[in-house]
Amino acid sequence: MSRPTAPAPARPGRRPGDSGTRAAIEAAARAQFAARGYERSTMRGIARDAGVDAALVAHFFGSKERLFAAVVELPFDPSEVIPRLVAGERADVGRRFATFLVSVLDDADARARLLALVRAAATEPGAADAVRTLVTTRVVEPLVAALGVSDAGLRAGLLGSQIVGLVMVRHVVGVEPLAGVPGVRLVEVLAPTLQRYLTEPL
Amino acid sequence: MSRPTAPAPARPGRRPGDSGTRAAIEAAARAQFAARGYERSTMRGIARDAGVDAALVAHFFGSKERLFAAVVELPFDPSEVIPRLVAGERADVGRRFATFLVSVLDDADARARLLALVRAAATEPGAADAVRTLVTTRVVEPLVAALGVSDAGLRAGLLGSQIVGLVMVRHVVGVEPLAGVPGVRLVEVLAPTLQRYLTEPL
Repeated sequence: MSRPTAPAPARPGRRPGDSGTRAAIEAAARAQFAARGYERSTMRGIARDAGVDAALVAHFFGSKERLFAAVVELPFDPSEVIPRLVAGERADVGRRFATFLVSVLDDADARARLLALVRAAATEPGAADAVRTLVTTRVVEPLVAALGVSDAGLRAGLLGSQIVGLVMVRHVVGVEPLAGVPGVRLVEVLAPTLQRYLTEPL
Repeated sequence: MSRPTAPAPARPGRRPGDSGTRAAIEAAARAQFAARGYERSTMRGIARDAGVDAALVAHFFGSKERLFAAVVELPFDPSEVIPRLVAGERADVGRRFATFLVSVLDDADARARLLALVRAAATEPGAADAVRTLVTTRVVEPLVAALGVSDAGLRAGLLGSQIVGLVMVRHVVGVEPLAGVPGVRLVEVLAPTLQRYLTEPL
């Protein structure tokens, strides 16, 4: 009996249906990391939510750290956002960045995803690495490169520090009055700091 | 048979030796929160380290949150630091604050204690409340009050956001080059931001 068609070339360590299983695990991991935070999420719980055996999660991803790194993502598309921030008056880039940041923080879903990133980075060195790589390579480096400024790395770090701190104080800890300050006022007070970190002499 | 001396007046719910037991539990809690972080510390583990029964920890402190709130402390004495920051040229208070902050972060023990605060606040709402109360009432409010500026609460929040973010990015996540930038350079780049948040128009 001859096979009617040649079998598709097999990738080593993969079986038919693997991509669907991986996708199910990744979806369950995204949901669990967002809902419970990195610390309280478990490989076992993610396997259960994905309807697969825990051994399969370990087979595909090895560790919770590596699973987190595989699914961590930004709550916006940097390739769409960065050109918009860079276009226009250079003296206003701080204000445009502040406006964009506040719009992300005012969107419940985007805010939840950003908070999950910051919380994970705060608690686990492995998660911190994944978040650092994501934010640095996808957002901050392209942004400072597009602006063509010196000290790009240091500027990136300072910018990141003000953003992470704002997320922590305004949304994680919830310090008033900062937590309740209207978005337009927040843009006004943050813009000069972001402008300085982005383009002014340090 | 008569008792030779009158018993000491008993405080309700207290037994002789309670203060020593409390102190032992608090010392064990401080050590465990610092070494393992809030999330991984347990009432049971703290009881074991203190050499007491876990029920006694629950009796004295009720919950891990309340135990944390009881032992959380700053890695410096604000009543000594704040007058030093406020004294001198008002236009240089940002630089004095940045210099003080960098000196705290350059001291391994003080840094570890500050990191434990930030990590705890990032992961647990109960711990975040304790950290917020501590930092707000002991440091930021006295500082902005001593400067006699308007918008004191908002300034306090902005100042806190830049400090928390710096601790996160430079020490928790460890983003280069910010993580490795020399202290004098860090003072230089932070001072204008802190000065603006402390005294300039927002």
